[in-house]
Amino acid sequence: MAHNIVDRLTETFRRFPGIGPRQARRFVYHLLREGQNQIDRLTAELHELGKAVAQCQQCFRFYSAPVRPESGGPAKTCDLCQDLERDNSLLMVVEKDADLEAVRQSDTYNGHFFVLGGLIPILEKEPQLKVRLRELTAAVTKRMADNSPRKIKEMIIALAVNPEGDHTIEFLKQTLKQFTDEGLHLTVLGRGLSTGTELEYSDTDTLKNALANRS
Amino acid sequence: MAHNIVDRLTETFRRFPGIGPRQARRFVYHLLREGQNQIDRLTAELHELGKAVAQCQQCFRFYSAPVRPESGGPAKTCDLCQDLERDNSLLMVVEKDADLEAVRQSDTYNGHFFVLGGLIPILEKEPQLKVRLRELTAAVTKRMADNSPRKIKEMIIALAVNPEGDHTIEFLKQTLKQFTDEGLHLTVLGRGLSTGTELEYSDTDTLKNALANRS
Amino acid sequence: MAHNIVDRLTETFRRFPGIGPRQARRFVYHLLREGQNQIDRLTAELHELGKAVAQCQQCFRFYSAPVRPESGGPAKTCDLCQDLERDNSLLMVVEKDADLEAVRQSDTYNGHFFVLGGLIPILEKEPQLKVRLRELTAAVTKRMADNSPRKIKEMIIALAVNPEGDHTIEFLKQTLKQFTDEGLHLTVLGRGLSTGTELEYSDTDTLKNALANRS
Amino acid sequence: MAHNIVDRLTETFRRFPGIGPRQARRFVYHLLREGQNQIDRLTAELHELGKAVAQCQQCFRFYSAPVRPESGGPAKTCDLCQDLERDNSLLMVVEKDADLEAVRQSDTYNGHFFVLGGLIPILEKEPQLKVRLRELTAAVTKRMADNSPRKIKEMIIALAVNPEGDHTIEFLKQTLKQFTDEGLHLTVLGRGLSTGTELEYSDTDTLKNALANRS
Repeated sequence: MAHNIVDRLTETFRRFPGIGPRQARRFVYHLLREGQNQIDRLTAELHELGKAVAQCQQCFRFYSAPVRPESGGPAKTCDLCQDLERDNSLLMVVEKDADLEAVRQSDTYNGHFFVLGGLIPILEKEPQLKVRLRELTAAVTKRMADNSPRKIKEMIIALAVNPEGDHTIEFLKQTLKQFTDEGLHLTVLGRGLSTGTELEYSDTDTLKNALANRS
Repeated sequence: MAHNIVDRLTETFRRFPGIGPRQARRFVYHLLREGQNQIDRLTAELHELGKAVAQCQQCFRFYSAPVRPESGGPAKTCDLCQDLERDNSLLMVVEKDADLEAVRQSDTYNGHFFVLGGLIPILEKEPQLKVRLRELTAAVTKRMADNSPRKIKEMIIALAVNPEGDHTIEFLKQTLKQFTDEGLHLTVLGRGLSTGTELEYSDTDTLKNALANRS
Repeated sequence: MAHNIVDRLTETFRRFPGIGPRQARRFVYHLLREGQNQIDRLTAELHELGKAVAQCQQCFRFYSAPVRPESGGPAKTCDLCQDLERDNSLLMVVEKDADLEAVRQSDTYNGHFFVLGGLIPILEKEPQLKVRLRELTAAVTKRMADNSPRKIKEMIIALAVNPEGDHTIEFLKQTLKQFTDEGLHLTVLGRGLSTGTELEYSDTDTLKNALANRS
Repeated sequence: MAHNIVDRLTETFRRFPGIGPRQARRFVYHLLREGQNQIDRLTAELHELGKAVAQCQQCFRFYSAPVRPESGGPAKTCDLCQDLERDNSLLMVVEKDADLEAVRQSDTYNGHFFVLGGLIPILEKEPQLKVRLRELTAAVTKRMADNSPRKIKEMIIALAVNPEGDHTIEFLKQTLKQFTDEGLHLTVLGRGLSTGTELEYSDTDTLKNALANRS
């Protein structure tokens, strides 16, 4: 093998989000300084992550799935999807797990989620390869059924405010048109001034939305 | 005199917003390098600023006021306040000139303005010393009169989204209560996701507002 | 167990140098998105790191130590310490592995190293608990012996230029006084302008050193 | 005139070092808020700067030159050049006034200065148009004369450590070769670790210089 293990592990850490070559190497030295016990602990946690975290077959978020001996494997749907206290009539579409966690920790929403898995680039020719369009359509179809116990009334598209996010919103509105015709309420998050905004430094779109949504 | 002119001018530039001692001194050296012509030009522009810019007696913004020989001085109200095309029924209260300029350049608002002159610190005991409360009350009183040609229907409070801004909004709502009782519509700019917002990094307040204002 | 595996792994990543809670959590999601293969690969690399990297018993750096079946374990000293081409008369004392790597990659030094393991805080009462003083004294004692094949002539103290670094230099000079009395040449890295330095922004110490070391 | 005074003054401030369009405009509003007295004060200071600051005909720094009515104008040489306590045998060549001030305030040098007025770009064909080469040669010629009361022994080239600075050093060494042949000692500032340097983040040149200049 060309490289030694310090170099190879440095390269692995370089693929972590936001990590450059120097910091990646410092991670390796950090582990070496912390010693074998810490390396063993991290290894064990990674092993557990691989085994105990599953991707929910309903909302597609990753979740801790305690292995159930009797069933021979983890549950297929996550704790949020199984939570009877959450409002079945609401479905929020988010880009990624971290967005879902942010909304969840804000304690401002009590409905269900769907992780789209990305945003659709503006000139993308095969959007279904970038995001879970088929899965979303299937999920909505199932939950729009008259006798569904989880009948959905409103879908909230909750994406980042940037050109890709806006393009994805437009694409979803077209793709899901059949459902809105059948009565599904399709909404997007409200826009305006966010915490910390100063008017002096705001762009035209934000000022326009803030003015349109004044109350 | 204790200090020489380079030191004194450095001190003057230090009071400019966002300028530290080193950059202030570099400004002086910059002027010296540019030479006497540039110094003369800046001096002339400052002289013109002092003469040609006046503070509007109606909205309190600074504006270019061409001196009119026949009237013996600049006009008392600014071009925006005199603009007959602007909607008299709307008055937007902003903190400072730069905010007003941002809204104006966004071309999203066609009403009138009022520059408050600051925000009210949370424990401030004499708010009227910090912002133009008396002037605002007087302006609204005058424009709420039944026969006012500029009768105001809605006042939009357009302040930065931070604790001082929120405190100022509450204070204005109380101070202007008599007018809302008389029918004045008092609104604040809408809140939610602003341009560039990513859900992952949003605070609870912003997510809550974005959800509440979804549409 | 109180926390689930995502939370626990997030906490482990938080201890990585320069990593806050949000980025730590993104690391976990990154691994989940990359999938089981990548998690397995990282686990394998960590396992290899623990087995294949040893701490050199001579210079205390971490190094890749290929396991030698015949000897029942990795070598006790590193490749640098065993390198016969390196100059035995020079020993450079550095704070940590990353410093050693920087010097090594600069290709400007061909002597040996000693990793001190830290700097001595200014009011520290038990410096020997913070850095490898005993180990350094022992190493120098051994290599000052008349018949040592690796007889040392000069020790270069190569530490960061800050108060703790300067304090550590003074402390080492006192601690090693017996050796300098016996003829050991104790030096510190030269000081002056470093790459990118502009005079305008230099502090007094740097200018003083640059002037004193002009040539 | 196309622009109003606020726009024109904003453009003037934009030419100040490190100032973008927004901050330039904030400067104008700052002056307007501070009021006529402050504008008058700045105008007066600028006027005084133009009149009271002269460029020294010997070292080419800008200095406060009190107008002497009897002589009909400011002195031709600055207070530093006239200071009999400074060491006549030393001449330090710096790029610009701010560098000279930094050295002067560090209180580490008691010789004389010469402000070169810039650095020589690497592919520059007419260096004498960029920096004061003729003036420097003339000054050294005069002060190398046997009977000069200010006879110079050493010239210290004190420039920023970057490619242009290094190129300028080489250029000066060639240009001044006749003087070094006649006994002038030509030195450059010492290089090595500067305050705050950490080995881990140091480049090869800095490490090489630090090692070469160890002591």
